[in-house]
Amino acid sequence: MFRNIIPSDYDKGIIELLGELTTINKDNITREQFSEWVNGSSNSPFHYTLVLEEENRIIACGTILIEPKLIHDMGFVGHIEDVVVKKEYRGKGLGKEIIEKLIAIANEKKCYKVILDCSHDNVHFYEKCGLENKGVQMAIYN
Amino acid sequence: MFRNIIPSDYDKGIIELLGELTTINKDNITREQFSEWVNGSSNSPFHYTLVLEEENRIIACGTILIEPKLIHDMGFVGHIEDVVVKKEYRGKGLGKEIIEKLIAIANEKKCYKVILDCSHDNVHFYEKCGLENKGVQMAIYN
Repeated sequence: MFRNIIPSDYDKGIIELLGELTTINKDNITREQFSEWVNGSSNSPFHYTLVLEEENRIIACGTILIEPKLIHDMGFVGHIEDVVVKKEYRGKGLGKEIIEKLIAIANEKKCYKVILDCSHDNVHFYEKCGLENKGVQMAIYN
Repeated sequence: MFRNIIPSDYDKGIIELLGELTTINKDNITREQFSEWVNGSSNSPFHYTLVLEEENRIIACGTILIEPKLIHDMGFVGHIEDVVVKKEYRGKGLGKEIIEKLIAIANEKKCYKVILDCSHDNVHFYEKCGLENKGVQMAIYN
């Protein structure tokens, strides 16, 4: 069952899981900092991080930001971020399941669209989740 | 001079300006709803909308969301959204100026990167602003 992230997920491998996605080092994130982030996110109506727990370990997670806009008559857009499934659990449909759950949150929040950025390699996966290629992601790094 | 959005911009054509970007109808947004949105945004450390005023009209605007992440050791990412310059003021470098100001906010907030989504037609413009093509934007509509 997917559920919202909670502070004790710190001890259940969520940081190691995110390390399968990109740069993150548990040595640089204290339990207190993690709790503060989770509590800030739990108290926000604009930020949801879902996790999937199995045998006391977090094996998948994903986030959706809800952006209140002026355009579309003060509509909302959902931004899906940082979706990852633990290597040994891939190929079982969990990625698609997280995306569906995040889109369901966006629907509850009345988002007129949900967007995400991905590499060319992942376009086919997201098409299977019902999304379509709509443009280009540009970035500048510090 | 670019400045933060304020409630009285409602009477200075900002909604008509956003109408040059996409769907928005002033009849569906009351002064009170606009003020509430602006005040919510002004009180958030994660949301900045800049406007450029000339002769009592808003002639350009752009927004940046600051997203607090777990990845990159609890780093921040800036998301640039809804950048538009009024038709008769285009071609004067104002678009590039807004992007630079929004990136400067992201830098102050210690974002490790700034991203935005655009159409293929606008890639060259954003490259001139220092951004590079990093991937694909996927979307699903309600």
